[in-house]
Amino acid sequence: MVWLQQGFLMASNRFGELFTVTTWGESHGKAIGAVVDGCPAGLLLDEELIRAELKRRAPGLSPLTSPRKEPDEMEILSGLFEGKTTGTPISLLIWNRDADSSKYEPIKHLVRPGHANATYLAKYGCYDYRGGGRASARETACRVAAGAIAKQLLATHQITVRAAVTEVGGHLLNLESSEDQKKLQTLIKEVQEAGDSLGGIVTFWIEGAPAGLGDPIYQKLEAKLAAAMMSLPATKGFEVGSGFAAAKMRGSTHNKDNHAGGILGGISSGAPIVGRVAFKPTSSIKQPQETVDTKGNPASFSLPEGSRHDPCVALRAPVIVEAMAALVMADALLLNRSARL
Amino acid sequence: MVWLQQGFLMASNRFGELFTVTTWGESHGKAIGAVVDGCPAGLLLDEELIRAELKRRAPGLSPLTSPRKEPDEMEILSGLFEGKTTGTPISLLIWNRDADSSKYEPIKHLVRPGHANATYLAKYGCYDYRGGGRASARETACRVAAGAIAKQLLATHQITVRAAVTEVGGHLLNLESSEDQKKLQTLIKEVQEAGDSLGGIVTFWIEGAPAGLGDPIYQKLEAKLAAAMMSLPATKGFEVGSGFAAAKMRGSTHNKDNHAGGILGGISSGAPIVGRVAFKPTSSIKQPQETVDTKGNPASFSLPEGSRHDPCVALRAPVIVEAMAALVMADALLLNRSARL
Amino acid sequence: MVWLQQGFLMASNRFGELFTVTTWGESHGKAIGAVVDGCPAGLLLDEELIRAELKRRAPGLSPLTSPRKEPDEMEILSGLFEGKTTGTPISLLIWNRDADSSKYEPIKHLVRPGHANATYLAKYGCYDYRGGGRASARETACRVAAGAIAKQLLATHQITVRAAVTEVGGHLLNLESSEDQKKLQTLIKEVQEAGDSLGGIVTFWIEGAPAGLGDPIYQKLEAKLAAAMMSLPATKGFEVGSGFAAAKMRGSTHNKDNHAGGILGGISSGAPIVGRVAFKPTSSIKQPQETVDTKGNPASFSLPEGSRHDPCVALRAPVIVEAMAALVMADALLLNRSARL
Amino acid sequence: MVWLQQGFLMASNRFGELFTVTTWGESHGKAIGAVVDGCPAGLLLDEELIRAELKRRAPGLSPLTSPRKEPDEMEILSGLFEGKTTGTPISLLIWNRDADSSKYEPIKHLVRPGHANATYLAKYGCYDYRGGGRASARETACRVAAGAIAKQLLATHQITVRAAVTEVGGHLLNLESSEDQKKLQTLIKEVQEAGDSLGGIVTFWIEGAPAGLGDPIYQKLEAKLAAAMMSLPATKGFEVGSGFAAAKMRGSTHNKDNHAGGILGGISSGAPIVGRVAFKPTSSIKQPQETVDTKGNPASFSLPEGSRHDPCVALRAPVIVEAMAALVMADALLLNRSARL
Repeated sequence: MVWLQQGFLMASNRFGELFTVTTWGESHGKAIGAVVDGCPAGLLLDEELIRAELKRRAPGLSPLTSPRKEPDEMEILSGLFEGKTTGTPISLLIWNRDADSSKYEPIKHLVRPGHANATYLAKYGCYDYRGGGRASARETACRVAAGAIAKQLLATHQITVRAAVTEVGGHLLNLESSEDQKKLQTLIKEVQEAGDSLGGIVTFWIEGAPAGLGDPIYQKLEAKLAAAMMSLPATKGFEVGSGFAAAKMRGSTHNKDNHAGGILGGISSGAPIVGRVAFKPTSSIKQPQETVDTKGNPASFSLPEGSRHDPCVALRAPVIVEAMAALVMADALLLNRSARL
Repeated sequence: MVWLQQGFLMASNRFGELFTVTTWGESHGKAIGAVVDGCPAGLLLDEELIRAELKRRAPGLSPLTSPRKEPDEMEILSGLFEGKTTGTPISLLIWNRDADSSKYEPIKHLVRPGHANATYLAKYGCYDYRGGGRASARETACRVAAGAIAKQLLATHQITVRAAVTEVGGHLLNLESSEDQKKLQTLIKEVQEAGDSLGGIVTFWIEGAPAGLGDPIYQKLEAKLAAAMMSLPATKGFEVGSGFAAAKMRGSTHNKDNHAGGILGGISSGAPIVGRVAFKPTSSIKQPQETVDTKGNPASFSLPEGSRHDPCVALRAPVIVEAMAALVMADALLLNRSARL
Repeated sequence: MVWLQQGFLMASNRFGELFTVTTWGESHGKAIGAVVDGCPAGLLLDEELIRAELKRRAPGLSPLTSPRKEPDEMEILSGLFEGKTTGTPISLLIWNRDADSSKYEPIKHLVRPGHANATYLAKYGCYDYRGGGRASARETACRVAAGAIAKQLLATHQITVRAAVTEVGGHLLNLESSEDQKKLQTLIKEVQEAGDSLGGIVTFWIEGAPAGLGDPIYQKLEAKLAAAMMSLPATKGFEVGSGFAAAKMRGSTHNKDNHAGGILGGISSGAPIVGRVAFKPTSSIKQPQETVDTKGNPASFSLPEGSRHDPCVALRAPVIVEAMAALVMADALLLNRSARL
Repeated sequence: MVWLQQGFLMASNRFGELFTVTTWGESHGKAIGAVVDGCPAGLLLDEELIRAELKRRAPGLSPLTSPRKEPDEMEILSGLFEGKTTGTPISLLIWNRDADSSKYEPIKHLVRPGHANATYLAKYGCYDYRGGGRASARETACRVAAGAIAKQLLATHQITVRAAVTEVGGHLLNLESSEDQKKLQTLIKEVQEAGDSLGGIVTFWIEGAPAGLGDPIYQKLEAKLAAAMMSLPATKGFEVGSGFAAAKMRGSTHNKDNHAGGILGGISSGAPIVGRVAFKPTSSIKQPQETVDTKGNPASFSLPEGSRHDPCVALRAPVIVEAMAALVMADALLLNRSARL
């Protein structure tokens, strides 16, 4: 830990109002975990579906993502009985294996470009130099696990959530087409060789939501979705329905079709809910970069030998975007009906 | 009121955690108002600054906005003593004068295109057909008044918030230039003659915020700003810093300058915070539109005679965007220091 | 206002989670009021019932209570349409008439024995010397009005709340008996002549609540009732079911009957819920008392000429205790079923 | 698990606003645990102090308490670096060893007198028959661990919390006197031989709290302490300062001394804060009792062979009462100063 001074308060590790998740853990600590509090009793929970979602998020599974291995062995410690939720908090834990912190020693006093260590230092008087600590994207594994529980609750109401990468480095892509998959491989290869990284856009679709979910005024459904997505690491923009394109339209055009994106006045209309999330390019790149140390002196920053980073974080993001959308919708469902499964 | 069935819960009229505002009131009820709870004691409050902000929001002040008159006579009923806040809740009230509901009678059973009455009906079993009721943009006057209090708190910390229209109907504009002002007048005139409306984009700048405001993980500063802006009527998109453009950039470019928009890892960096909000074109237009009635039968919808609507809601939005940004920042300030003025 | 220094934060004017009330106003300000947010749509609300409850709380109606006149003219400003709740916030306002602050001038720098001005000064750096300001028991009128709305919601579920004074100055009383009424009159007369005041106990009964309301662990129903009652001015103790007497019992006795008071493990059992609240004697008494001024110098404190105070605050408390119990139960009902009326 | 029907929502496993604790786990599950979110960064945390507090709570350490062994091996999984808090959530876990559920099989369909299984069944449609599940007093170990962290935060502000048993079965006791210790042993022996149990009272003292902690109106310090104590298993009453005795006093007496118990108008006065908590006699007793099964048929209930229960839960309660008081005060401290250690 790098300490500058005595620190401040740091809370804010909870998401949701009735269907809630509280997460904890650092990338190089003993474990990370989540407590899901507020899931209704009586839900038959398939643990394998949670593991399958964690696998979708895990790195090292594709030539396009980081070759790091995070086996993500998840254990559920409470809240289930004979496979069903009992209404008590569901505590789940993922051990951190094989986290070697020594390679971060040489750069521990440097402000990593695009990273949060300077702002954590300003706020808490310290930061965890070992792979990002709490600010590491490893934290999103807990979101995915909690989201996988939310998805199973939504499934009992025929609500589904889906997300896909639809743009990389400015190129519109449909990754269900093999041609576009090849195009992506070429893009990634080129940027990796340049020691650089790419941004991208993830689109999400929520289908089957009945009319009436969400709330007016300050708790609008689009406001909650926006906060959920903008709480993800590396996100810079959010839009729903016609989004920024709406700013270029006329009312006579916009009032037609589902430009509203399935939400009107903060409340779902029954039409599919559609939105898009912009991810910046991965901050960690192989090229040496100019920075400062924690005392403000100029310095050159290079990643430690053997560092493995995603060339484009958006590529691993769909499962995380789905998880956040599922958490918002599960909460909206309970806020609306709150009770019986 | 149009009632369909027995109704549901409707909450969510509160914003903020420590510096909070609760608003109430319908566009055609007796009054609207706000209760600001959590403003520190000892703040010398200038009521005229609140009135000046309300005037900026009021329609009828420019040929470019709706000719409706909303005098917005505000009265402060509690929380001040000898001009200073005492720490008790500040209750403020704006009477509704001259609200003629009769003209809405003929359209009371029609679903207004782009409006929330269908979704309110699905959720609550009723909706207020008189000018939007609670869903009316008139509600934003309360946000502006509360925001004007937040601004005065921020001013004691040398934090300022500013917003401006930077795009209308797809045209980039700098409204400090008289040439662009003329261009805008022409655009508006044309669209009004066509009985149509335009979308637009509002940019905001927060300056003077110290490093360390905001929180990690789920309560990131950009997540709160996103929720704040997406809770405004007619907003469809939000971006911070480089925003959607980041998705087209490379890491080596993005890590430079203030592409982060003044926030890293959810916490302010000390650089100016910059963001943009997309507004859809005004839903109420003069052209007749196809719709359905509350029973689902097709119908033609025309605005009542004498209806007065903004040709472009974005034009009146900067003061509202500023208010929401100020509320978020005042709350972040207290969450961080919470106490002494 | 007496100012000592720059102040701190003062929030906490909201009660409840789904059925919520936010109150505001000082005893010598323009008005006091409440915003009820979260009342389900579709409730036919009888305003006269609210007024009747306010009358039960008002002083000057009995020789046993303060002769002050507080006409409590209440006005509802939002949230109703054709007599029914719409789900939008219900804002209600009570004007302060005839509040003469001048008589408090001579004692403005004295710490009132048993009052909150010393602690407010420590916390906020100021206090309102005019009749207690925000700390005045006049604030409870807003609780009563909100409670009267909660009662009407509960009535649609056949849940009733009732409270009565059952002990004054150590004497057990049944005020439905005329003999005990006479006994009380004698007690009060004697203590008034002595320039003194009496404490008392109020018992409450909640009937018709189905089994299953409330929550386990930290949000137990008895914990919420305790917090509700201990948030009332002048309360010093709370007990449910067998209460402090349970500490003297054996398990073989306690497990029988309704010693649990209608709650087991934080959740209602279907049996009547019974509890008791202890009120201290009125702090304002005619006898001169020793105190200090705001600088800590010893001083003698006497009430201003013409001050009118209750000889026993418990006597006016049943309607307030009922209001708090109703607010807790309405919230528990919605937390459990949350939605449809 | 005994299931009756599809279930409801069960949340409410979080305590506190800024200094928060979320707990999870069942008595016969894999583990129990707590996540402390909001503890300021920079606190040097002594893990042994936490373990020492857990030992104070553990059964089997005195002839007067249950001979059950709960070794309570605690592990801290996150939130510390080099012995200091970093501001990130502190996750701690206690494994459940040696939990033999088989002995509960024969009584799984019986409603345990004085226990929560009937109310859980009404609320959730199921209950955990194995030793109380989530409703087990084992859950209080997590409160104790979190409280031990809160105590260390308070210690940096010279605030201390202490509690002691002051009454058992109606007998006032000072357990610092050896005579009273003997008296207690005789009482306990007698009630154990009778297969019965005793109630008791725990008194707590908070010293060193500065004036100004707590909040007015609904979040009064005494209201929070009341809710904290009444959220503990087996509590039936709470009082602060003069408590129920105040109801028998006159104002001229009550205004003197510290009858207020260190709190005026919801805010600490700087004087020691004193309160008392009433515990009912242990519900689990050796005598056979009459009850019903889950279908409502009359039945005789006897504890399983080898069941080990405390003859008086109040005897193990002081450390739990201290923990809750510490959590309330740590939160009040941060709500007031919120930030820097």
